[in-house]
Amino acid sequence: MSASAQGAAGGAAGGAVAPFRVGLLGHGTVGSAFAALLDERADEIERFNGRRPVITGVLTRTRGDFEEILADSDLLVEVMGGIEPAREYLLTAMRAGKHIVSANKQLLSQHGEELFETARAHDVRLRFEAAVAGAVPVVRVLEESLSATPIERIHGIVNGTTNFILTEMTRGCTYAEALAEAQRVGYAEADPSDDVSGRDAAAKMAILARLAFGSPVHLDDVPYEGIEHLHGDDLEYARELGLGLKLVGTAERRQGGLSVHVHPTFLYSGHPLASISGPFNAVTVESETITELTLSGPGAGGRQTASAVLGDVVSVMTGGARPPAPPLPLRLVTDVESAYYLHLDVADEPGVLACVTKVLGEHEVSIKSVVQRGMGEHARLVMVTHPVLESGLRAAIAEVDEFDFVRSPTRSIRVIEEEFV
Amino acid sequence: MSASAQGAAGGAAGGAVAPFRVGLLGHGTVGSAFAALLDERADEIERFNGRRPVITGVLTRTRGDFEEILADSDLLVEVMGGIEPAREYLLTAMRAGKHIVSANKQLLSQHGEELFETARAHDVRLRFEAAVAGAVPVVRVLEESLSATPIERIHGIVNGTTNFILTEMTRGCTYAEALAEAQRVGYAEADPSDDVSGRDAAAKMAILARLAFGSPVHLDDVPYEGIEHLHGDDLEYARELGLGLKLVGTAERRQGGLSVHVHPTFLYSGHPLASISGPFNAVTVESETITELTLSGPGAGGRQTASAVLGDVVSVMTGGARPPAPPLPLRLVTDVESAYYLHLDVADEPGVLACVTKVLGEHEVSIKSVVQRGMGEHARLVMVTHPVLESGLRAAIAEVDEFDFVRSPTRSIRVIEEEFV
Repeated sequence: MSASAQGAAGGAAGGAVAPFRVGLLGHGTVGSAFAALLDERADEIERFNGRRPVITGVLTRTRGDFEEILADSDLLVEVMGGIEPAREYLLTAMRAGKHIVSANKQLLSQHGEELFETARAHDVRLRFEAAVAGAVPVVRVLEESLSATPIERIHGIVNGTTNFILTEMTRGCTYAEALAEAQRVGYAEADPSDDVSGRDAAAKMAILARLAFGSPVHLDDVPYEGIEHLHGDDLEYARELGLGLKLVGTAERRQGGLSVHVHPTFLYSGHPLASISGPFNAVTVESETITELTLSGPGAGGRQTASAVLGDVVSVMTGGARPPAPPLPLRLVTDVESAYYLHLDVADEPGVLACVTKVLGEHEVSIKSVVQRGMGEHARLVMVTHPVLESGLRAAIAEVDEFDFVRSPTRSIRVIEEEFV
Repeated sequence: MSASAQGAAGGAAGGAVAPFRVGLLGHGTVGSAFAALLDERADEIERFNGRRPVITGVLTRTRGDFEEILADSDLLVEVMGGIEPAREYLLTAMRAGKHIVSANKQLLSQHGEELFETARAHDVRLRFEAAVAGAVPVVRVLEESLSATPIERIHGIVNGTTNFILTEMTRGCTYAEALAEAQRVGYAEADPSDDVSGRDAAAKMAILARLAFGSPVHLDDVPYEGIEHLHGDDLEYARELGLGLKLVGTAERRQGGLSVHVHPTFLYSGHPLASISGPFNAVTVESETITELTLSGPGAGGRQTASAVLGDVVSVMTGGARPPAPPLPLRLVTDVESAYYLHLDVADEPGVLACVTKVLGEHEVSIKSVVQRGMGEHARLVMVTHPVLESGLRAAIAEVDEFDFVRSPTRSIRVIEEEFV
């Protein structure tokens, strides 16, 4: 490592300080954008911090040697993705006293505790802003600004691909058209299943829940539902009811435990997430102490994600945040109350509404509003319920769908209604 | 200082670590809320950081001794407000090696460089999240998350009092009614002039501009205009035009320099600040690298502000951010281009519109849209211009207002129109 050559190339803060050596694991979209951005910003970072960051090695599938890169770095940036070998590399690096910046949501949502514990044990930094919401600095805000604030609830739009698709569907596209458009402009991958199934959002919510509530949450603990089965009808009713339809991740204290899940959700128009459109991400943090804080911005894109990675690198250079404290496990609560929108496709016969509402009532599903609309021989019943346990709702729907007059399986979507916090 | 007694009262992280001693200067709304919040959260903070924060002294107008408090603290929290003696206290404390957390926007916007320089010289932390936007963590995000990002522009709603008043006016209140309501619910002080004049927002924009662009900006450098002269008419037209009216602070690179100002501003409905209502604050940061990031939340309130102060205290306990780097002054540009809404009250005579547009054209004010509306003998001309230098617009209005057919001084309000970033 030619520290003197780097020093000589340095800026105002003097040539005597050794550069800060960054090893880069992965050189895809984010990795190459990071390398370019670091190069552009190195002078400014050196001016501010007195030390210049330099990339001292790059590992790709076809070139670079991990051991050499490790020996020649103060910090590793991991933007390879996937579980192995990323996990093994990061554990090895931390045990060797190297700091880590990672954008790997799969790894953090499945092996977070092991990584955090290793970082604590070896007193190294482990930062991962880019793993959750692209350039939106929600990790830092939760870890630092809100570290002294008791958090009640987080709602997040943490997948830009699905938010883009839903925005297009709101403008009248079908799901297939919107997905094709997302693929055309580069917001969706050729195989979009990780995004549209809700699994990507579930991984991010697992990470956020750990930060906000201190309780370990594994990706497998997070129930999720995607957007593939949404109908244009649902979007149309949303508009009529003055609601926005988003893929919302929720992590909240419930019944003395913690509830974390991802579902398509109707939001009243005044909700801070309702106006987030296109490939943007946004997170709302609720707390009695601060009421409600919302962060929004681009959720993906190589350069945006690279900006979050570089911000983390600079953080490590300047000292600062520690890895999350040892976990304080909370019981995971899966059966929680929520209001629901229900869409029933029924025969247009007398007595149908009475039958349906009787069954719902037997399962303690209380109706807040109902609209019945004839469509020739069919009718559509659109209802919004008062908050009800998911188990009760599922049982009620199963029983309703047994009726002969029900023409297709009843659809249900969660609703977040206005509340005055 | 009874470190052992404090240690004995401590939590899971062990009794051997000395507490982190906090001296509190000021015990008004924020100071007392801070003391209460610290007490509530001390166990959790100790669990996370291994060290317990304790208040070791309080200075009010009638009790406490500054020298004693200084000697018995690791950090001073300054929530007294005003320039002196706060300035002298903070300089003395930093020279004695004490860290500082301050919520004092007047002081930071008028003596920021002196404070930053002293913090750098004595290698102490100086944090001031609560000075800018209450619980909205814009200072941290600019200093840390975006420290490696070249920023082009910041727009901020950084005064909750005026945003509350404008929200009430949008619902049909007069300015006087809205102000009275703001005072009744505690969002406005008995003497609201610092808020409604725009001066409070100007101080906050001076601080944000320093953080975002590295250039020292003094409160006196920031032209500002308040909301006292706004008419219900303007709000009504805003609604018709699909625009929101907000008190917006702007700091942006312009013509190779820096422009910072605060003005009532019309925003197109899709702008991230257009939907911010009530006593909330919000800041939008634009950069080629990250597109656009928006943070919003409560802008004031004792407990919310106390939460930001406590977040800063915890930051100092865990190491982290340095004071801003030495300044790199940029030329301040005061005459910048903007689109404007113009409201003319004229006699309803033939040829009026021709006369007005001729004068505007001579000053290179180009009209984008115009609506003329008869009101008996009077007519109202409402125009939106293309972007024009403020000096050109002012000269044009001065000349237009010379016409006999102009019944009252022409009103102008800046407009931020949709752009595709």
